[in-house]
Amino acid sequence: VNSTLPATVIWQQGQLQLLDQRRLPEQISYLEINTLAQACEAIRTLAVRGAPAIGIAAAYAMAVVAGGVAEARRLAELEAAAQALQAARPTAVNLSWAVQRMLRLARSDIRLERLRAEAEAIHDEDRSLCRAIGVNGQHLITPGCRVLTHCNAGALAVSELGTATAPLYLAHAAGVEFRVFADETRPLLQGARLTAWELAQAGIDVTLICDSMAATLMAQGEIDMVIVGTDRVTRNGDVVNKIGTLNLAVLCHHYQLPFYVACPSSTFDAQTPSGAAVHIEQRPASEVLDGRAAQVKALNPAFDVTPAALVTGLITDRGLLRYADANPLAPLLDAATQTSRS
Amino acid sequence: VNSTLPATVIWQQGQLQLLDQRRLPEQISYLEINTLAQACEAIRTLAVRGAPAIGIAAAYAMAVVAGGVAEARRLAELEAAAQALQAARPTAVNLSWAVQRMLRLARSDIRLERLRAEAEAIHDEDRSLCRAIGVNGQHLITPGCRVLTHCNAGALAVSELGTATAPLYLAHAAGVEFRVFADETRPLLQGARLTAWELAQAGIDVTLICDSMAATLMAQGEIDMVIVGTDRVTRNGDVVNKIGTLNLAVLCHHYQLPFYVACPSSTFDAQTPSGAAVHIEQRPASEVLDGRAAQVKALNPAFDVTPAALVTGLITDRGLLRYADANPLAPLLDAATQTSRS
Repeated sequence: VNSTLPATVIWQQGQLQLLDQRRLPEQISYLEINTLAQACEAIRTLAVRGAPAIGIAAAYAMAVVAGGVAEARRLAELEAAAQALQAARPTAVNLSWAVQRMLRLARSDIRLERLRAEAEAIHDEDRSLCRAIGVNGQHLITPGCRVLTHCNAGALAVSELGTATAPLYLAHAAGVEFRVFADETRPLLQGARLTAWELAQAGIDVTLICDSMAATLMAQGEIDMVIVGTDRVTRNGDVVNKIGTLNLAVLCHHYQLPFYVACPSSTFDAQTPSGAAVHIEQRPASEVLDGRAAQVKALNPAFDVTPAALVTGLITDRGLLRYADANPLAPLLDAATQTSRS
Repeated sequence: VNSTLPATVIWQQGQLQLLDQRRLPEQISYLEINTLAQACEAIRTLAVRGAPAIGIAAAYAMAVVAGGVAEARRLAELEAAAQALQAARPTAVNLSWAVQRMLRLARSDIRLERLRAEAEAIHDEDRSLCRAIGVNGQHLITPGCRVLTHCNAGALAVSELGTATAPLYLAHAAGVEFRVFADETRPLLQGARLTAWELAQAGIDVTLICDSMAATLMAQGEIDMVIVGTDRVTRNGDVVNKIGTLNLAVLCHHYQLPFYVACPSSTFDAQTPSGAAVHIEQRPASEVLDGRAAQVKALNPAFDVTPAALVTGLITDRGLLRYADANPLAPLLDAATQTSRS
């Protein structure tokens, strides 16, 4: 479906390489990750970004750490590495989910080949989750429809099909004609640099807009639905995602448009009761000030919280879960229970 | 109040200079305007911007044109100049208002000194309008209040006090402590480059945010009101202003916050029934694409239309006009009638 895109994460014979997304689309280059510090740096500086991709990269980083130390000291090193990786970015749940899964295995089986296989399994499962999201959301993309998305929850954020983009890629492969509007997503312009680029590469009709233009397009009847990704969905259905997502959800509510969130079950956080309990990463003011030497302060929250009341539904690997239905999140709660048992 | 700021428009002994706002705040430089073509170029490329400032600059440009031609051919030249100036930017009503006022005079009195005096009168009246807006809106700025604004409707857009900023400057001069949040205002960043800079210069507490962050600040109770400027208010009270204004109005409606528009009576357009009838300038896609060589389309409407139903009121030189009142726009309609009579 998307074979022209460079892979976000490359893992070959125990060597980890991450596509440096800060330089896209101008430059396609890879960072070699041989140490824990390099992995943390890549996550913190957004060389690798997108909730699922961060989780995959962190899982492989745990395998890299495991490979650099004798078995006797391996568990202690992995416990420390888990702390460091999780602290690199606090908001996306996939990061701690993947790291904790690696750690759980390490406590029962410390062999390097088992740890590597586990990281590969996380990567493989992510591909499957994305494909299932695509299958469950594809029918939303009807001929002629116009979809607005925000940030990048595409192939670059995940693997293969992306999350928010998975229904789009499958519909496109099935020959459905539709249009995508991509929010540029200030301050780091993931929509302009990544989403618009990856969709255009795949031959999908994509139009870039500034974040502030969505309202006028909706007022003019030019948008039929919004589909975004998410960094964490809490137990009550609140959606934590890239700053600007809440803005779109309020607009959809006002203009009576559906607001969908693509959410792999690995991004559902059954432990956290609501968005109010999520630590929102505050990034450097310099990203907003853009190098202007003003005597001006700036705020730079990386994420916002969209209350469940503004969400139409989640497109998940467990089905299209409509918030208006009774117990819409039950399939994700089941999945979470199974995972914590396993 | 704002003596550290460079003047937007300088007129001395029949010579016109315009502050080149494209280079602010890094560089303070002036364009000399000796020809009609130079004036049109300065307006089209946003060297001079802000609805009232464009009107003032165009009035002086008419005086420059008048000075370059003998009396016998002057009226014909001014008629042609009026067409060219009005076409330079189609949306702001002040541009055609000022040009038509100059033309009206020229048809009855073609003497150069009268034309120059008329342009100076337009400039002087603008200062008075801004001061009156400040006086009529100052009481809204209560101690501790937090005001969000968009684009630049400040001193740089107008003269002296600005429009949306006039209540802020007067409250600051009166010793009231308050905070301003400035939307950066993509794609041309007038909020980041101009508003944040001019307010900081004046010693006002200002924090820059990306346009997409307003929703989360409102959700957290960090904003008490929005005050923006406008390029045109139509007869039914619709507000045409910088793209992103409608977005804020919808957010204010959702979070039950007041949404005020600072509007000099020269910006009220009694001839146009509603925002639907206003020609919205579409600017080059390259401003949004930011030089990225993507195979991606982009939209770049410069303005949006906020329906009257989302507006709390207009802060005008004729008083604070609350849309919930009966016939709130009557004072502006009176002013328009007087102007067209005069």
